[in-house]
Amino acid sequence: MFKKRENVAAIEEGKILSPKFDKDGLIPVITTDFKTKEVLMHGHMNAESLKKTIETKEAYYWSRSRKEIWHKGSTSGFVQKVIEIRIDDDQDSIWMSVDIGDGASCHVGYRSCFYRSVSLGKIKNTEQVEMEFKDKKKKFDPNIIYKGKPNPTKI
Amino acid sequence: MFKKRENVAAIEEGKILSPKFDKDGLIPVITTDFKTKEVLMHGHMNAESLKKTIETKEAYYWSRSRKEIWHKGSTSGFVQKVIEIRIDDDQDSIWMSVDIGDGASCHVGYRSCFYRSVSLGKIKNTEQVEMEFKDKKKKFDPNIIYKGKPNPTKI
Repeated sequence: MFKKRENVAAIEEGKILSPKFDKDGLIPVITTDFKTKEVLMHGHMNAESLKKTIETKEAYYWSRSRKEIWHKGSTSGFVQKVIEIRIDDDQDSIWMSVDIGDGASCHVGYRSCFYRSVSLGKIKNTEQVEMEFKDKKKKFDPNIIYKGKPNPTKI
Repeated sequence: MFKKRENVAAIEEGKILSPKFDKDGLIPVITTDFKTKEVLMHGHMNAESLKKTIETKEAYYWSRSRKEIWHKGSTSGFVQKVIEIRIDDDQDSIWMSVDIGDGASCHVGYRSCFYRSVSLGKIKNTEQVEMEFKDKKKKFDPNIIYKGKPNPTKI
């Protein structure tokens, strides 16, 4: 759908979008809050969801658990308004800056999916590396918002 | 190496690190600057590089192009000192906040790999979606720093 990737110079130094989708047709997306700059989530898009996101300025992802185009916020109401989309040097990952107001982006209920911090330093036992909760208060109750829907987290 | 993933509640709400590596044994890593909070790069780690990063507080990735553990900065000198590592709800992606001083993280020479912004709005021709350079000045000359080394960007 997008411009064919033909040479490294055009990919790295050019001004035409020519994204690289992986063998599943997906490109990873880093989503940050445009105000606080915190990382909200890590998702994926296929060509169609990238096109819809660019055109509508609302975030569409590819849901790997449901295997469908996913208009973020269609269930929770927390739509992501796109402020900026950047792409990296070899055009195989996207950084998207969004406005979610006072909402949330994590299906567990927290504002950001990255609510836990890993203890750094010498590891005694890799099976016991501890984490600290940095975000303690949920923005919503997932048992209400996602009632009856399967949890996307897989073991 | 890390704690076995046994149930969704422990993965999402627990305090023990239990990362999910994909079928290639990798987990995606979002790397941001701890001061400016800009996204510097999107990389991958395997279990060994994650362990080394936690223990040494310097970023080790898995290089998919060279298929080896990659101590970031070993060629360029721009080592990433790890300030914080966070993990997301289902523990299948990492957000790492680093200190690179006045250095750079992009092999093309820019501070961040995400130096181009995509034009938003109605697309007339998907083969001609334009981008704007947001970072115009390289921090180093990759032809000097990486002289004789293959370019990791693949078509």
